Amino acid sequence: MRMYDLIVKKRDGGELTREEIDYIIEGYTDGDIPDYQMSAWLMAVFYKGMNARETADMTMAMVRSGDMLDLSAINGIKADKHSTGGVGDKVTLVLAPMVAAAGVPVAKMSGRGLGHTGGTIDKLESIPGFNTSLTEDTFVKQVNSIKIALTGQTGNLTPADKKIYALRDATGIVDSIPLIASSIMSKKIAAGAQVIVLDVTCGSGAFMHNIEDARKLARLMVDIGDNVGRRTIAVITDMDEPLGNTVGNAMEVIEAVETLKGRGSRDVLDVCLELGAWMIAGIEADMADTGKAADRQMLEQLHDKAYERLETTIKDGSALDKFREWITAQNGNSAVIDDYSLFPSSKYIYDVKADRTGYIRYTRADEAGMASMVLGGGRAKKDDAVNPAVGVEICAKTGDYVHQGDVIARIHSDDEKMTAESEKRLKNAFVIEDNEVERNMLIKEIVF
Amino acid sequence: MRMYDLIVKKRDGGELTREEIDYIIEGYTDGDIPDYQMSAWLMAVFYKGMNARETADMTMAMVRSGDMLDLSAINGIKADKHSTGGVGDKVTLVLAPMVAAAGVPVAKMSGRGLGHTGGTIDKLESIPGFNTSLTEDTFVKQVNSIKIALTGQTGNLTPADKKIYALRDATGIVDSIPLIASSIMSKKIAAGAQVIVLDVTCGSGAFMHNIEDARKLARLMVDIGDNVGRRTIAVITDMDEPLGNTVGNAMEVIEAVETLKGRGSRDVLDVCLELGAWMIAGIEADMADTGKAADRQMLEQLHDKAYERLETTIKDGSALDKFREWITAQNGNSAVIDDYSLFPSSKYIYDVKADRTGYIRYTRADEAGMASMVLGGGRAKKDDAVNPAVGVEICAKTGDYVHQGDVIARIHSDDEKMTAESEKRLKNAFVIEDNEVERNMLIKEIVF
Repeated sequence: MRMYDLIVKKRDGGELTREEIDYIIEGYTDGDIPDYQMSAWLMAVFYKGMNARETADMTMAMVRSGDMLDLSAINGIKADKHSTGGVGDKVTLVLAPMVAAAGVPVAKMSGRGLGHTGGTIDKLESIPGFNTSLTEDTFVKQVNSIKIALTGQTGNLTPADKKIYALRDATGIVDSIPLIASSIMSKKIAAGAQVIVLDVTCGSGAFMHNIEDARKLARLMVDIGDNVGRRTIAVITDMDEPLGNTVGNAMEVIEAVETLKGRGSRDVLDVCLELGAWMIAGIEADMADTGKAADRQMLEQLHDKAYERLETTIKDGSALDKFREWITAQNGNSAVIDDYSLFPSSKYIYDVKADRTGYIRYTRADEAGMASMVLGGGRAKKDDAVNPAVGVEICAKTGDYVHQGDVIARIHSDDEKMTAESEKRLKNAFVIEDNEVERNMLIKEIVF
Repeated sequence: MRMYDLIVKKRDGGELTREEIDYIIEGYTDGDIPDYQMSAWLMAVFYKGMNARETADMTMAMVRSGDMLDLSAINGIKADKHSTGGVGDKVTLVLAPMVAAAGVPVAKMSGRGLGHTGGTIDKLESIPGFNTSLTEDTFVKQVNSIKIALTGQTGNLTPADKKIYALRDATGIVDSIPLIASSIMSKKIAAGAQVIVLDVTCGSGAFMHNIEDARKLARLMVDIGDNVGRRTIAVITDMDEPLGNTVGNAMEVIEAVETLKGRGSRDVLDVCLELGAWMIAGIEADMADTGKAADRQMLEQLHDKAYERLETTIKDGSALDKFREWITAQNGNSAVIDDYSLFPSSKYIYDVKADRTGYIRYTRADEAGMASMVLGGGRAKKDDAVNPAVGVEICAKTGDYVHQGDVIARIHSDDEKMTAESEKRLKNAFVIEDNEVERNMLIKEIVF
């Protein structure tokens, strides 16, 4: 087998066999296939695509390139949640304690990631003392005792994906649906959970800009998961507007706490309830050991019951208690829950005012993300530091009526020079219109 | 400017500016742009193409990447001829002495090349003593005194093209019309001739498999040449059948001599007369200093006159005399012209017989080329040695009627083991049909 021939085969729209895909992924991971051949092949995949079978084969070849986590020491069936990326995404911070409070184990591996803010790990590190590097032993014991633990990635998971992702990132081959699907699913499968719930974001602040592409990506990932025996459910959510009212690390943790207190914005809670309910429903369906085809209706029923259970964890304060317990278990100062002044805060707060009177419509969530990024809240390169204190607070969202001069956002900045740039970016993110604007429908579709 | 952005721009079908193309070619030649980004960009060009302006800009950026030859020390206007590659192509060996005998200087730089046989340099080296490495001074003096000289490539011409070609060759991005056009034209422009005649081959043994692609390539190259002030004329010729009756190094030189003696096959002579006549017509049109638009009719008249002049050089023996003079000038043993036994010859000659009675139709010239290649007559890698003695002699061509058992080809081999493989390849190259088969139309179109 020669990489040259496999490039030409894909270039001309051919379907690669499992053996051919294994040869490519193994050869590239081992360094036998050079970067320049791999990038030519990836560009051919960008144009010619891969079908579901090829994508599943690529996924599993990447899974086999490194370690696979064994979560069997943790009692019960484990579910994992993954988002394809959004602006203001503090879902894990709310969902994890809610699900754990409902009695379902949450064993979460998380990353730092590139983007408008840091990843979940960065956000949690804005809680003084919070330890995000647990040993495997501590991690397992903590989940078994208090149902919840979160740690940074351990082990050598999917080195093939890491190498391929870096190459795609350097060659402009990021937004290819089969390449995104195989990258995400290889990491989730290697991380060991039996049930995988995917938040497939859709809109200007996401990889998928329209519902058709989001559907394709969701379907491909669900099929890959099901084919390898991991029950996978995808929820397509809106990302034309940032999620919730904050974009920034410490600010998002505070918003998550507010949500757990029952005082957060409705959109954050809706997404957390929806995703959490599917995690629990997936686990319960697995416990009932039903086949895929027969259980759609049952899954929906399980989801509706789980949704109510999760709502209760907010009402009765058990989710908030679980968050407190979680922070303490990982050496964090849980007093932050009652005293937000213990979080890092920015030097300056700058009010952004409405230029005119009318209805707000967010159309570019990505620009709202950039408004936080330019303040130092996010990470452009892998080794960049993230500033936990800075970010953007959004005071008026799509559908809200504002008067000229009203404060519609606040920029939390440590650097006066970047404040103007941040405001400029933020103002690209929305328009103010004369006619009434409908609010966004946040949960668009469920794919399973 | 960032290469990343230029990859994405071309990936999405954008048109690159001249500055952007200069940035890519200079950056890649200097090593600032890595192979993996360049191959991703080239694959994007493969799918999205480049328009005439982009292709011309890429051509000139490659020309500027190295030296340009200055042929001004040679008297008169210089013409060059280039073929996009074919099987059994001995055109230069016949055309060069014909044109020189007609009084027009031929200052030819030639390569070894990869392919079914060696390049013109390899073929000439099958003449004992023939020196293909002339100093610039000797080269110029020889053209001025006897109107003809040929040498291997000198100077550092188009290093960008060399580097890009090697990358394309390793990544399956060879058959892209704008990339082929810019590669060929950059070399021809850097080599200094004012008039460029292109033999654009078309068929199974050529890069261009159909007339539409051949036309596109021809038009693109002619426009590039004209845009930079080099009069360029393209002749589209058939390559579903090998040219002439031999494929092999020494064997092709012998066939060229036979053609100069007026005894060669008609197809070789036709192509040589056609291309040679356009070279002379191009030079004479340049001397008359007419504009491009006004001179189509004049060019055709000049071509017809030149065609007759060249025919005369065969009839009166002056082309053969010129060949003899040329060999002697470059230290070769010109006695080979009268005694073919002075050429290297193979150990074995194996007859290939017709399996059935009927009319021959060659459909796969590339397989006929492979029949020579497997014997050692060609070069798969740059450093391979070429065996001058071996090759394939074709005794029946498209349209010929043969009886079962007739000798239709002869394999000249030094290795009995490879003879069977050679025969198998050769038999893939043609079919024998019951109904009468029309002969190929060799000269398909003129583009200027």
